[in-house]
Amino acid sequence: MRLTDEQDVRSGQRNDRRQRLKRKPRVGIQGERGAFHEMAAARLVRGSFELVPLPTFPALFRALANRKIDYATVAIENTLAGSLHENYDLLLKHRLPIIAETNVRIAHNLIAPPGVSLRSVRKVYSLPIAFQQCMRFLGRHRSWELVPFYDTAGGVKMLMEKKFADSAAIASRIAADVYGARILARDIGDDKENYTRFFLLARRPEKYPAAGPRKTSIVFATRNLPGALFRCLSVFALRDISLTKIESRPLRGRPFEYLFYLDFLGDLATPVARNALKHLAEITEFLRVLGCYPTVS
Amino acid sequence: MRLTDEQDVRSGQRNDRRQRLKRKPRVGIQGERGAFHEMAAARLVRGSFELVPLPTFPALFRALANRKIDYATVAIENTLAGSLHENYDLLLKHRLPIIAETNVRIAHNLIAPPGVSLRSVRKVYSLPIAFQQCMRFLGRHRSWELVPFYDTAGGVKMLMEKKFADSAAIASRIAADVYGARILARDIGDDKENYTRFFLLARRPEKYPAAGPRKTSIVFATRNLPGALFRCLSVFALRDISLTKIESRPLRGRPFEYLFYLDFLGDLATPVARNALKHLAEITEFLRVLGCYPTVS
Repeated sequence: MRLTDEQDVRSGQRNDRRQRLKRKPRVGIQGERGAFHEMAAARLVRGSFELVPLPTFPALFRALANRKIDYATVAIENTLAGSLHENYDLLLKHRLPIIAETNVRIAHNLIAPPGVSLRSVRKVYSLPIAFQQCMRFLGRHRSWELVPFYDTAGGVKMLMEKKFADSAAIASRIAADVYGARILARDIGDDKENYTRFFLLARRPEKYPAAGPRKTSIVFATRNLPGALFRCLSVFALRDISLTKIESRPLRGRPFEYLFYLDFLGDLATPVARNALKHLAEITEFLRVLGCYPTVS
Repeated sequence: MRLTDEQDVRSGQRNDRRQRLKRKPRVGIQGERGAFHEMAAARLVRGSFELVPLPTFPALFRALANRKIDYATVAIENTLAGSLHENYDLLLKHRLPIIAETNVRIAHNLIAPPGVSLRSVRKVYSLPIAFQQCMRFLGRHRSWELVPFYDTAGGVKMLMEKKFADSAAIASRIAADVYGARILARDIGDDKENYTRFFLLARRPEKYPAAGPRKTSIVFATRNLPGALFRCLSVFALRDISLTKIESRPLRGRPFEYLFYLDFLGDLATPVARNALKHLAEITEFLRVLGCYPTVS
């Protein structure tokens, strides 16, 4: 894990910075510190690293492309909320390869500043979607006022700054750690099968230090003829390759063409996976490999 | 469009309510008045109707199932944000049929109380995702403070209540109408191809009054064997039926099985569509029709 910005070599001061960076890679996340992105980063990056919070996904991709950070941790889909098409667009635009993936369970917790007890809570701050996902727990505390807030971890940060004595927030366990708050009730979500899938992106393909099978993610486009997708899937079926994801998306501005996101179990180091993609390239109008990577747990 | 709640017939008072409802169907939306859901409802429901805002999607589905409303308008996917898996779950749980669909362009506007000019704006309230989608416009006004808020239309409502003289919100055109605010800048989103697809749901299948072709939406599950999806798609390819959407989703708690969402161009009143589904039922473990409906524009 190293920074390869040539400019950094030019001055002593910059050289120092480079030395420091050699030891600690800079890993970007979207959102405030304490967000679920931080949990994903901690799992995806081995060893210590410097966390760089960035306000939006486009800013996160730009930071990686412009060498402000060495790696980016990016949410790509959630078991309840679906795929983030916007981040697929950014993957296509920036050509930053996926080098690993992980699935983080979105476990909601009721969090408050030290000294605030469950009994003294009158108001709860969080994203509306977090309230929606904790209805069973909140239904047992009907007197609480639910105050919509723009961010989960941001709610904990705000409570700690303002030292409210009657308020709590719903956020990740790590948000409590980061801001020095306390967890009043753990894992209060209704649906325990709430997972977000995150990618670790680098600037160039690199071998992620993990053994085990690889998954490959591709994007392709076909003309919208009956049977077009059927023909495309034959390149995998005929080689007994298992798919783990497929998703269509209308191509913007071209209403009769479609993009497909597809993941399959296969390593591009093997001939069977490479042949399947060669075959697919013959029958598609567009084909891009987003990365070949292990699953980290 | 009529209400068929038997209880309503029992008392004169209720009978009056029923009479009123016969004239004006109650149509539920998710979110505050002025949300993009309201624009979709206005397009999907012919004639006048009573709008019923509900705080969450589960509340919206329950209201329709429990006869509190006659129809529900539900977002199902967005060209940038993807499919709302949660709403597919609710469709599977409640068995409320889709009777029409429409696509609404998400056009963001800068909106302020009357008397506030573009020059006097210092703060802008909206959802963080709305800021992200208007970066080009906001980049020309770098001195503005962006204040994250829990809802787009809710931001306009709050500004009107508090009568801030230096603040604006980013929201739909209809939010300005609903709350009596003024549009300072129209259609300020970076990506004009930002569309949300909405379904109109009823309690029972009913013939929507529109001519033209029909689309059918289904959900099915297969075992995760290589080639399983390929075999499923053959029932459409062999009959020259065009698909307009396909999306896989891992089945919760059963990591080696998958659910698929699939839409195809076809009317269940025709033998070819019915035969395709009969054939599909033979080779899947689970198959459900969500609805057969026209596209309203």
